[in-house]
Amino acid sequence: MSRCPYFEKKHLLFKSKPSIEESQDASQAGADKDSKGRIIYGDYLQLDKITTAQVLQSELQGNKIHDEHLFIVTHQAYELWFKQILFELDSVREIFISGHVRDERNMLKVNTRIHRIVMIFRLLVDQFAVLETMTALDFFDFRTYLTSASGFESLQFRLLENKIGVQDNLRVPYNRRHYKDYIKGDDTETLLETEQEPTLLKLVEEWLERTPGLEVDGFNFWERLEINIFDGLNVEEKKIEKMPESEEKEKLMVEVVQQREHFMSLFDEKRHEHLVSKGERRLSYKALQGALMIYFFREEPRFQVPFQLLTSLMDMDTLMTKWRYNHVCIVHRMIGSKAGTGGSSGYHYLRSTVSDRYKVFVDLFNLATFLVPRHWVPKLNPNVHTFLYMAECCDSSYCSSEDSD
Amino acid sequence: MSRCPYFEKKHLLFKSKPSIEESQDASQAGADKDSKGRIIYGDYLQLDKITTAQVLQSELQGNKIHDEHLFIVTHQAYELWFKQILFELDSVREIFISGHVRDERNMLKVNTRIHRIVMIFRLLVDQFAVLETMTALDFFDFRTYLTSASGFESLQFRLLENKIGVQDNLRVPYNRRHYKDYIKGDDTETLLETEQEPTLLKLVEEWLERTPGLEVDGFNFWERLEINIFDGLNVEEKKIEKMPESEEKEKLMVEVVQQREHFMSLFDEKRHEHLVSKGERRLSYKALQGALMIYFFREEPRFQVPFQLLTSLMDMDTLMTKWRYNHVCIVHRMIGSKAGTGGSSGYHYLRSTVSDRYKVFVDLFNLATFLVPRHWVPKLNPNVHTFLYMAECCDSSYCSSEDSD
Amino acid sequence: MSRCPYFEKKHLLFKSKPSIEESQDASQAGADKDSKGRIIYGDYLQLDKITTAQVLQSELQGNKIHDEHLFIVTHQAYELWFKQILFELDSVREIFISGHVRDERNMLKVNTRIHRIVMIFRLLVDQFAVLETMTALDFFDFRTYLTSASGFESLQFRLLENKIGVQDNLRVPYNRRHYKDYIKGDDTETLLETEQEPTLLKLVEEWLERTPGLEVDGFNFWERLEINIFDGLNVEEKKIEKMPESEEKEKLMVEVVQQREHFMSLFDEKRHEHLVSKGERRLSYKALQGALMIYFFREEPRFQVPFQLLTSLMDMDTLMTKWRYNHVCIVHRMIGSKAGTGGSSGYHYLRSTVSDRYKVFVDLFNLATFLVPRHWVPKLNPNVHTFLYMAECCDSSYCSSEDSD
Amino acid sequence: MSRCPYFEKKHLLFKSKPSIEESQDASQAGADKDSKGRIIYGDYLQLDKITTAQVLQSELQGNKIHDEHLFIVTHQAYELWFKQILFELDSVREIFISGHVRDERNMLKVNTRIHRIVMIFRLLVDQFAVLETMTALDFFDFRTYLTSASGFESLQFRLLENKIGVQDNLRVPYNRRHYKDYIKGDDTETLLETEQEPTLLKLVEEWLERTPGLEVDGFNFWERLEINIFDGLNVEEKKIEKMPESEEKEKLMVEVVQQREHFMSLFDEKRHEHLVSKGERRLSYKALQGALMIYFFREEPRFQVPFQLLTSLMDMDTLMTKWRYNHVCIVHRMIGSKAGTGGSSGYHYLRSTVSDRYKVFVDLFNLATFLVPRHWVPKLNPNVHTFLYMAECCDSSYCSSEDSD
Repeated sequence: MSRCPYFEKKHLLFKSKPSIEESQDASQAGADKDSKGRIIYGDYLQLDKITTAQVLQSELQGNKIHDEHLFIVTHQAYELWFKQILFELDSVREIFISGHVRDERNMLKVNTRIHRIVMIFRLLVDQFAVLETMTALDFFDFRTYLTSASGFESLQFRLLENKIGVQDNLRVPYNRRHYKDYIKGDDTETLLETEQEPTLLKLVEEWLERTPGLEVDGFNFWERLEINIFDGLNVEEKKIEKMPESEEKEKLMVEVVQQREHFMSLFDEKRHEHLVSKGERRLSYKALQGALMIYFFREEPRFQVPFQLLTSLMDMDTLMTKWRYNHVCIVHRMIGSKAGTGGSSGYHYLRSTVSDRYKVFVDLFNLATFLVPRHWVPKLNPNVHTFLYMAECCDSSYCSSEDSD
Repeated sequence: MSRCPYFEKKHLLFKSKPSIEESQDASQAGADKDSKGRIIYGDYLQLDKITTAQVLQSELQGNKIHDEHLFIVTHQAYELWFKQILFELDSVREIFISGHVRDERNMLKVNTRIHRIVMIFRLLVDQFAVLETMTALDFFDFRTYLTSASGFESLQFRLLENKIGVQDNLRVPYNRRHYKDYIKGDDTETLLETEQEPTLLKLVEEWLERTPGLEVDGFNFWERLEINIFDGLNVEEKKIEKMPESEEKEKLMVEVVQQREHFMSLFDEKRHEHLVSKGERRLSYKALQGALMIYFFREEPRFQVPFQLLTSLMDMDTLMTKWRYNHVCIVHRMIGSKAGTGGSSGYHYLRSTVSDRYKVFVDLFNLATFLVPRHWVPKLNPNVHTFLYMAECCDSSYCSSEDSD
Repeated sequence: MSRCPYFEKKHLLFKSKPSIEESQDASQAGADKDSKGRIIYGDYLQLDKITTAQVLQSELQGNKIHDEHLFIVTHQAYELWFKQILFELDSVREIFISGHVRDERNMLKVNTRIHRIVMIFRLLVDQFAVLETMTALDFFDFRTYLTSASGFESLQFRLLENKIGVQDNLRVPYNRRHYKDYIKGDDTETLLETEQEPTLLKLVEEWLERTPGLEVDGFNFWERLEINIFDGLNVEEKKIEKMPESEEKEKLMVEVVQQREHFMSLFDEKRHEHLVSKGERRLSYKALQGALMIYFFREEPRFQVPFQLLTSLMDMDTLMTKWRYNHVCIVHRMIGSKAGTGGSSGYHYLRSTVSDRYKVFVDLFNLATFLVPRHWVPKLNPNVHTFLYMAECCDSSYCSSEDSD
Repeated sequence: MSRCPYFEKKHLLFKSKPSIEESQDASQAGADKDSKGRIIYGDYLQLDKITTAQVLQSELQGNKIHDEHLFIVTHQAYELWFKQILFELDSVREIFISGHVRDERNMLKVNTRIHRIVMIFRLLVDQFAVLETMTALDFFDFRTYLTSASGFESLQFRLLENKIGVQDNLRVPYNRRHYKDYIKGDDTETLLETEQEPTLLKLVEEWLERTPGLEVDGFNFWERLEINIFDGLNVEEKKIEKMPESEEKEKLMVEVVQQREHFMSLFDEKRHEHLVSKGERRLSYKALQGALMIYFFREEPRFQVPFQLLTSLMDMDTLMTKWRYNHVCIVHRMIGSKAGTGGSSGYHYLRSTVSDRYKVFVDLFNLATFLVPRHWVPKLNPNVHTFLYMAECCDSSYCSSEDSD
């Protein structure tokens, strides 16, 4: 009697928590069921809403244009997935905010959900290929009916940016006006609220600041790294000095000097604060240390999952920026760019958002300029090793392994 | 004042048909507008419906499971795109039904829209990668709450199959019951109706039967092809007969005989009807001739777009079957397959639909077994050439070039 | 005895041109065969070359780094596909150069091959996802061994750019030096040669200039379009003048004026030449007219395939620019960007090439700013209609339908 | 003077191991360098081999067919990536064989490399879209020149299958002959060797058998799970017995009985061995226990990475099977399927390999049939918890963190 491809058995037995009676009561509130108490697919998914929400403005105005349907459905699909991304993002932020992330067991969830956002963005980038089957001429036929309605007004996309951590002061103004001016009524409030909430960037920053091994009275990673790097550079310099004079030698000397300066900037907290104030760095000085520590010790069991998280955050950032660029491309195709015309335009505005200003985790990328040979990295001693392993294990309360979000 | 990235100008001027006054009236019925009469993005897309349609059964029953949200959104995205595919499919069928396709100008639309369906299916295949971020264990946590609701009950998917032309008698029964038994109430009627409507397969068949060049009192492609093929085979046979005895010669002789038999089946209408009755061929004898003619003369300007259409139909068929296979894969991952258990199961049922029985345009693929060297193809003479060019141009009424669907 | 999945039969019979004896002779020069004269898969593909070409510099220098293998294979895969793109590009240019495109039958080939390039670029964009499995830290471990070897030196990529039509004077210099300075020895010559050959842009331009319907003593599209547009704008203006005074009215008046100016620029050949000299337009004035004619009459059978070609050219351009942007992203990830450091860098150089300067067919995009309502487009009369149909059919010599490239 | 986009600096300083002098010596053996000792891009990638390996059989035989070039390049790209997959696979197997995996630090490498294989397969599945731009008619024009050479003879693909663990006795014979009969000369030996080496399946099996927590005198997961499950089922049964008589009650009773039988099969080692002998299960009884333990405790820090590995192995298996299915689809398109013809054929052979017989890690999928509610899973006590954390940490020798493969 099993009817559903997703089930070998109906597994009525396996309703974990509520008793059979309770569940029948509770279900009253939910989707309609058939005579046998089974949920109906279409009701469950609320398809009466989803598949009836396509109203063509061109049709309302007496001149139905076929391709407007695609335009609507594509944008709805984007919004549907934005909803899912926000859902994942909120759950991850909640784990961080509640301190649950201190129980390492929650890292799997955090990682899986950020990775899911990555996979969704990958799909959303590909999705432009569908909209590209519409030509500029097809679009022209109905674009007047839209008056000025545009993706620029997507509340969910702005929420997404804010919750991840796009900084208000780094946003490019559009026609000299702030992005919030384009969001309507109640939505502005929703938006303002998110600006008060801790962003993913902020939460990751706090988490990075707690990276075990940074403690000055413990492993003291940062100081030891500084010593190793400058010792290393000195050794190099002396090697070069012994070389016979040559163009090559000169170049190498210049390089040593530049490297030294470059690394001095890494260990100079004031310089860091200056870069932060200019928006060129985003993470705190301490968090940067944590990130670099995770990079260098990524193979330690304690750091494998954190390292994956940092990688996934870069994936997410990269895909958001690719999404922006794909958006630019389709806008160019749909409305062109007026050569030789002054004044800001949609196309040029969008182009300006494909920028590192909008890359929230830009520091994670730029740490690549501070990599050093493996033998310059401070060595762990057996004690630290065990420490890294056990980390926050000992003080974790043994919460049940059941999903508690 | 232009605010929208999609517009350089509001182009109020460019509303083609309705006067300004009319449009203001008509718009009453449409999306809400802001104080300046502009349509609001969220209203236009009915986001109040789209982004509020995610109700978790697990939450209703007091045990919210995070991943159910993904399950819902993914299925809704599928249904949203199915809606779009049905919209394109209906418009293409309408062009064929109304006879508009006799005006060659409509072929661009037909082609573009079938190609768009192809691009959507490509996306839908990729979309499984998002659902695959859910593990069997995550799914297990909420699957009991779904009772038996499943994609098997998707009305739109069944409509899609019917409208393209999946044949009722070729469908695999599920648990010995017909697929319609799994569709509820009013929906059954909707489904029955589509079974009465001309399918895309049927409409393409009729169009292929009209392929210029098939006329017995004209170019007479079919008879000339038959002659050329058997002449060609005779020449080959004689060549082989002159070879010295060898294993190779024997093999070649066997092959000639097999080829002759194989091609005899092509020119044998009774055999064709027999294969049709078994479901191994789907197109009429005449339509098959048209398809092969288009294949061989694909480079003629008159046939370039028809050839693209045949190719796109195969793309669509292939992608639907890939979609089915990807579905099988994720079901295997979510619920496994009970090794050694008898009886049909969801997994095994789905596997059985990944079959040529469900490939609607299977004949277009299988014509590949009847290809011949280019010099066996009947030569066009200059008259036919011009004929192919002008085709149905002369009797087409000069309907306006405006979009009339 | 048939062993090969790609064959139902060996079809020895079907060797179209060469007799059996000849082919045995000719094959001497080719891939090795087994005792039965069959070609061996690995020899045919020269796998002894392909799969032995991975030599790790890090291994040679005594410190094998695992991920260098991926780095090599990825770049080799890029070069392999560049080879294929060049092959398609050369064949398309050859069709144009030889004048074969005047025989409309060759348009299918042109279209198919440009579309194939599009599909390859789509793959190449996706291919970055594989390289992104390498982290900056993995790359750091072997990047010194590469000294300065980089994709910047890819001859094939430069050939590709040149053959499509990236203009020398629009290229961004790298470290104030010309791109050719980075190409070695003989390769520079190869590169210089391509700069002398007609680019795809040039060939498409010439083809567009021949668009039927542009003739002043014939349909005279351009003059008629100009008249219609300014008539249309006048009608709009008068309508607006009759409106009661309001902010809206004023806005519409401003818009009419702007539109008139904008379109005047379209019909002003001198202004066009000025934009060309600045690199903001690339096509000749006549070619631009042809493109716009094809846009407006895209549904005419004569123009359906040409319209697809213009669309595919935009696809190709868009994908090349997406490829560039994806390249930028991975470089950012691999080497970071030195915040606050002056001077040009790899990352910043690459960013600067993601620009409309490198979009060869930029005019096809920007024509979107010159679209008009369908009822402003000059009407075809029955004669022109037939003309468009028969076009170059009558003067085409009836070349055989066999592949002649 | 830095010229390479991948480098901000030449970082000559950062050559970790070899001194400057040594490296200059060693490099003699490697790629050519320019006058300044820099490696040249084209030499490094051996492009003289890669881009000259396209020899068209059709051209050799005097009838150059354009699309043969695509056919060759596509297959070469497949082989290039197979090479990379084999490289990753060998390195992973090496880590397992050498016992390095006992040092948990190597799990990151194992995971990353299996994930890389997954990403490559994803690309290879997409790559079919490029080959699909070739029509059956284009293929027909040159397929006779290939005689019987086919992908079926790809040595690397067979090696891949063998190294992952496709079982010889589960392979589908092709034309009643063994797959090895289609591999030539020396290659057969290479193939036979891999059949002797430990497969990835075998190595993962051994690793799973060591899963901490399985020990009978320790946590004793398996026995405790068995008790919990049957206790749970008993509780359910009693609940149902108390329900008033109804159709529903009867159904539930039947279900309880079936579930009990089903789970008895899980705890019955003899039944397991029987299923193994039929090829329906592949892992040892102990390994199966380890896999289920990892599933249930996936959130424990000790098991997060192992759980990801199991997921990636399923991804890999799924993608290989999707690759097979995409292959089937293109073969159908290229050569068709002779309706009503008896005898095995390429198309039908390939179809038969899209089967669970070729899914190496099929047990990991099918464990989904043995999932249970979270409250049936044995609870960890604080001691085991710490144990799981520290796992093999204490007995791991502190090998240096440098890459040693």
